[in-house]
Amino acid sequence: MAERDFIRWIREQTRQHADVIIPPGDDCGGLRWADSQSLLVTTDMLLEGSCFLRDAGPERIGRKAMSVNLSDMAAMAAIPIAAVVSVGFPHDISEEWAKACFTALQQQATRFNTIILGGDTNAWDGPICINVTFLGRPTDRGAVRRSGAKPGDALLVTGELGGSILGHHLDFTPRVAEAQLLQSLVDLHAMIDLSDGLATDVHHLCNESGCGVEIWADQLPVREAVHHLHDGKTPVEHALSDGEDFELLFACSESDAAKLMETQPLKHLGVNLSHIGRFLSVRAVQLKIDGMYYPLASTGYEHQFGQHVR
Amino acid sequence: MAERDFIRWIREQTRQHADVIIPPGDDCGGLRWADSQSLLVTTDMLLEGSCFLRDAGPERIGRKAMSVNLSDMAAMAAIPIAAVVSVGFPHDISEEWAKACFTALQQQATRFNTIILGGDTNAWDGPICINVTFLGRPTDRGAVRRSGAKPGDALLVTGELGGSILGHHLDFTPRVAEAQLLQSLVDLHAMIDLSDGLATDVHHLCNESGCGVEIWADQLPVREAVHHLHDGKTPVEHALSDGEDFELLFACSESDAAKLMETQPLKHLGVNLSHIGRFLSVRAVQLKIDGMYYPLASTGYEHQFGQHVR
Repeated sequence: MAERDFIRWIREQTRQHADVIIPPGDDCGGLRWADSQSLLVTTDMLLEGSCFLRDAGPERIGRKAMSVNLSDMAAMAAIPIAAVVSVGFPHDISEEWAKACFTALQQQATRFNTIILGGDTNAWDGPICINVTFLGRPTDRGAVRRSGAKPGDALLVTGELGGSILGHHLDFTPRVAEAQLLQSLVDLHAMIDLSDGLATDVHHLCNESGCGVEIWADQLPVREAVHHLHDGKTPVEHALSDGEDFELLFACSESDAAKLMETQPLKHLGVNLSHIGRFLSVRAVQLKIDGMYYPLASTGYEHQFGQHVR
Repeated sequence: MAERDFIRWIREQTRQHADVIIPPGDDCGGLRWADSQSLLVTTDMLLEGSCFLRDAGPERIGRKAMSVNLSDMAAMAAIPIAAVVSVGFPHDISEEWAKACFTALQQQATRFNTIILGGDTNAWDGPICINVTFLGRPTDRGAVRRSGAKPGDALLVTGELGGSILGHHLDFTPRVAEAQLLQSLVDLHAMIDLSDGLATDVHHLCNESGCGVEIWADQLPVREAVHHLHDGKTPVEHALSDGEDFELLFACSESDAAKLMETQPLKHLGVNLSHIGRFLSVRAVQLKIDGMYYPLASTGYEHQFGQHVR
């Protein structure tokens, strides 16, 4: 199938939408942007071999490419609106594979009430490469930054952590609805989505917010799957450093945290909230295990004795 | 250099801008978007081996990645505003190479009074891959689509055509200022930037506009460089099918065309305008050579005798 035929096929798949003023097929896509004073944009490139293996199949790969971007939108409690998608497909990819991948991208966009507004298709001799850029807007309560955590704030996380490599990293649900619901209930001081692993991403929250945090190992919601990984790491180590959980890690006041933990407002979405720590005025990231505090490096947790700090 | 150090370095390079409400380094970039009712978005992926060779150097590669997107903005006479940039760099790329490439991206953004609002950096085992997504807005006169050409309209082109492979495809100036100036002077009915070659791209204009065109071979502004290509093709063949000219091909009324040709309003920018054809009501793309008309396929012009159509 020639590239132009593939592009024609893509255009036929494109969902109609009232806000689209220039649909795919022109030099730029055009979108009405009248109700908002601002826009949010995020971009993520997925590369074969490092972000996925080809044998994951076109459906899961396409869905993941869309989902990682939706997760970035969720991390700001933003409303995702439209995406543009670029692909570099190897010459040996079949037409069926390419269409199945694009269909998965499209379906995931639709599932989140968003549209694909354009893109760029390329054939080359390299591995599979997919880039998605997502546009969205903040809710009326504003975008939740990484920088607003305060000493004394509670640290909470959605869902479960660790063992993502066993499938979750391809099949996760971006926490778009969850983030908006949380923001409607409490004042979210800071938030990030967990892509690099809790140990790394909590450092981002602390660095941007100018504070530290203590994390309670016994409160970490460890995914059951980690028990199938027989690599010598403890469940807590997996939960802290496996990465690609795509859950929300956020800061709010202690009283809001108590309210959230009591009501568990995401329960109807099948998502549990865990209160896993507390922000500190000292700029240190500490892990509390069995009453002892250990420094937690941004590279993840490695169990070493004789390191406790207080 | 670790990825996080490279990201920190990138953030340090980022230009301050009054419209940026969330600078690079958070989950999304944020931009004030208050003065416009709409936005335009375009995305282009540049792949090593098919869009450039590595020995072109990081400066030209980075610049090209930005310029091809700016050219899409120009094709709508749009005002480019902000970009996000994703890169997949091979592990064997040096820190100096990566920084030089990013600096070139940044400089080209600055040159066009735009900003880089965020991005995604990846190291992998594949070739170099750079994706840029550009956001912009239409001028007060609106975005110039591909679809507005009418039978009887004149077909004009900026600059020179052909032989891009000898360097122009890396070093071209996106016609952003030229497009806005033209739009302020005349009613642009339809426009496209020449990326695939005149023969292909004029078909896009005709298909979207529902009309045909005749192109006058003796009026094509052939770049001097094509005479250095000794591959058996004629200069006209090069001008029609080499591609990556990144000039503007547009439709306007005959009277506006006469005005533009007489005043040459882009002269101070070093850019000549050529009046190279006329739109037809019959849906055919024809090339006029020495008084005879030949069908011009979208795949480009190949000189064959006995094919003339009227």
